Amino acid sequence: MATVLTERTRFILDEDRIPRAWYNIAADLPSPPPPPLHPGTGQPIGPGDLAPLFPMELIKQVVATDREIEIPDPVRDAYKLYRPSPLHRARRLEKALDTPAHIYYKYEGGSPSGSHKPNTALAQAYFNKAEGVTRLATETGAGQWGSALAFAGAAFDLEIKVFMVRASYDQKPYRRVLMETYGASVVPSPSRDTQYGQQVLAENPRHTGSLGVAISEAIEDTVTHPGTKYSLGSVFDFVLLHQTVIGQETIEQMALAGEEPDVIIGCAGGGSNFAGLTFPWLGQTFRGGRRYKVIAAEPEAAPSLTRGVYAYDFGDTAKTTPLVKMHTLGADFIPEPIHAGGLRYHGMAPLVSHLKELGAIEARSVHQVACFAAGVQFARAEGILPAPEPTHALKVAIDEALDAKAAGEERVILFNLCGHGHFDLSAYEKFLAGTLEDYEYPDAAVQKALASLPTIAS
Amino acid sequence: MATVLTERTRFILDEDRIPRAWYNIAADLPSPPPPPLHPGTGQPIGPGDLAPLFPMELIKQVVATDREIEIPDPVRDAYKLYRPSPLHRARRLEKALDTPAHIYYKYEGGSPSGSHKPNTALAQAYFNKAEGVTRLATETGAGQWGSALAFAGAAFDLEIKVFMVRASYDQKPYRRVLMETYGASVVPSPSRDTQYGQQVLAENPRHTGSLGVAISEAIEDTVTHPGTKYSLGSVFDFVLLHQTVIGQETIEQMALAGEEPDVIIGCAGGGSNFAGLTFPWLGQTFRGGRRYKVIAAEPEAAPSLTRGVYAYDFGDTAKTTPLVKMHTLGADFIPEPIHAGGLRYHGMAPLVSHLKELGAIEARSVHQVACFAAGVQFARAEGILPAPEPTHALKVAIDEALDAKAAGEERVILFNLCGHGHFDLSAYEKFLAGTLEDYEYPDAAVQKALASLPTIAS
Repeated sequence: MATVLTERTRFILDEDRIPRAWYNIAADLPSPPPPPLHPGTGQPIGPGDLAPLFPMELIKQVVATDREIEIPDPVRDAYKLYRPSPLHRARRLEKALDTPAHIYYKYEGGSPSGSHKPNTALAQAYFNKAEGVTRLATETGAGQWGSALAFAGAAFDLEIKVFMVRASYDQKPYRRVLMETYGASVVPSPSRDTQYGQQVLAENPRHTGSLGVAISEAIEDTVTHPGTKYSLGSVFDFVLLHQTVIGQETIEQMALAGEEPDVIIGCAGGGSNFAGLTFPWLGQTFRGGRRYKVIAAEPEAAPSLTRGVYAYDFGDTAKTTPLVKMHTLGADFIPEPIHAGGLRYHGMAPLVSHLKELGAIEARSVHQVACFAAGVQFARAEGILPAPEPTHALKVAIDEALDAKAAGEERVILFNLCGHGHFDLSAYEKFLAGTLEDYEYPDAAVQKALASLPTIAS
Repeated sequence: MATVLTERTRFILDEDRIPRAWYNIAADLPSPPPPPLHPGTGQPIGPGDLAPLFPMELIKQVVATDREIEIPDPVRDAYKLYRPSPLHRARRLEKALDTPAHIYYKYEGGSPSGSHKPNTALAQAYFNKAEGVTRLATETGAGQWGSALAFAGAAFDLEIKVFMVRASYDQKPYRRVLMETYGASVVPSPSRDTQYGQQVLAENPRHTGSLGVAISEAIEDTVTHPGTKYSLGSVFDFVLLHQTVIGQETIEQMALAGEEPDVIIGCAGGGSNFAGLTFPWLGQTFRGGRRYKVIAAEPEAAPSLTRGVYAYDFGDTAKTTPLVKMHTLGADFIPEPIHAGGLRYHGMAPLVSHLKELGAIEARSVHQVACFAAGVQFARAEGILPAPEPTHALKVAIDEALDAKAAGEERVILFNLCGHGHFDLSAYEKFLAGTLEDYEYPDAAVQKALASLPTIAS
């Protein structure tokens, strides 16, 4: 008979506890991160360089040093559709692991599009709308980001154009249909809708696309359509900023639980959900508070923080973005097709990279098959089926819990379960059938890509 | 610019507000419903007739007349994984409709399997486990019920065998994989695992299955495997009982909102989510409280309450169950393949049918295409993509809100959004492409099926 678990399991907050401001870690950093550079001049870029792509309020957020950036009422109102999100104590998983550790997870999968992505999509849609923008262009890989922005477009009455990597467009039609249900227009990338897409298709009519190509198409679409701006779902400072509602809520919820985490874990691809959970906690430390063990969980197939170099590099494979200093595997590096599409990125958010350099966070890489095994164990214990991306954070959380067991410690572990896996069941099917591919660290490919890093006059 | 909506949107309850008892409407009914009869003798069945299929505690719940049936701690603990579920005010939908009506929806789609079904799955798994059962057999159509029971099996360490209608097994592989991820064993029905399945396949090796065949296979599996009992997801009294946590929570949440509903709406196939929402409210009325307009929303393609006869009939198409008095379209009636698979049933729960006869509830039928249009409108306004089943309740809620607008009334409307539609995007794709089939009331087929209703010596 199942043991009765009478302690508290779920910590929820009323909607008036949605944070009133985003937390800007720039206010508390011991030193600022190196600035983005213009690839032509090698000089720091200014607001004017970003103006064709983003509305001024978002650009201001990138350079702001205030600790709190107020969340406008219409954005808070839209957050009320799904926030605050619950914090769970994984008491059934603890029992399955027979560990003295206490495992907590913040669950962002209850949002309309099933992940944490709407936290910034709604903010970006609002600020664009407020400055008269009528249409946003973006790229999406597996579709988590595209469906979040499509939802935000419906909420703030904006046209949304999504360039979706053709491989995903063909393999994940349901993600496309979800975007279309919200009213977005979705084309496979490379598309015939841009000159760059036409050029790529002319060279290879059967090109299956890549995030790099899709970004280039979305940017070209933006600069060639009046009233259109560009929107993106990770990496950029303002994206990370908007995600800090996650961590702020967990500070309040852990207090409700009467505990403080020893270890805080997020998966990291571009870095936005990791930053969203951890920055508010790191800020407490920077302001003189207790130090936490903060771990970024990366895929072994694309471990930028654990194996990359810290250097100026392009954000996209087409090399059209400003140069940013980050941990990178080289902009030419194309990760293997792991199912955690959101973690298939050659670089890491500059702010997250900077924190790694400061020694404030550490990183750990994990294998795909072990992550799915953790995902199945979690689903059977806790019910929720995790998306492939957060299984990386989960795997590290389980490792920490087992380590605590070996050490006989009552360690408190907090991780971010940033999305559900209801769109990822074909990957779980492969795992259950024993046919899921595993990938080792692609040393040769990374070395080759790193050989062509841009040279910067220092 | 989007208007600022500063009033409350989401009403949540802390986990200690999960009800401690299920609400048993039998205690408050003005008259009891007619008893189930043994098809051979025409006499009321007793507990012994049900003992091969169900554990004694569940059988006791069917005949209990106590108003409150205590929820055992292990079931309440499992409910904590996702309950209490939120109540939302659909303020963006109200705005889109420009209606003075206030629209509230209870959202059950946040459960691990994405619908209200775990409310009874967990209870059934617990009571079986407590009596030494090691394995449960069940049937599933589209897979909502099967995945809920698979989850419950993982929670209470029971083997789960699911007979899944072959058409769905082939067309909805993701639902099958979800069940398998929870550890269940799933076979397409008709299967080679039962004599009845073999017989059906011998007649037609390409038989695509039906719920009736799957029920018969699950029952045969149950009685031929020691340690196995049968589990089902709707229609039966104890299933409806377990769902009353939904309505009890809404009574508390509407009080938080400071309003009382004028109209209460649930979609109705077998009747469990409808009963779960409405029975606790109806109980207040029976005990001398205010009367509400309570509406069961049915598909035009299978409108048992609106067009069926109130008569004794079999619960399954194979005619192996006890005879129950209900609104029925005839056990031989096979509804057209509407996408709301959970509403494709020839009959209606006897308790719900009885309430219709008492005049305590009314019923309304709606067309598939109009329901999907309502679903898209809802997704664009509120973010959540509804499963096809609750779009029926939603359509009626929208009609009521527009009627209130025409009448200039501030009507308060409450409906149950019993599941999300992330597994139903192929149907939304058809709707968006304008190729979704619509179905009229199948008068000839119903008349034919009704002609062979069983005859009962009265």
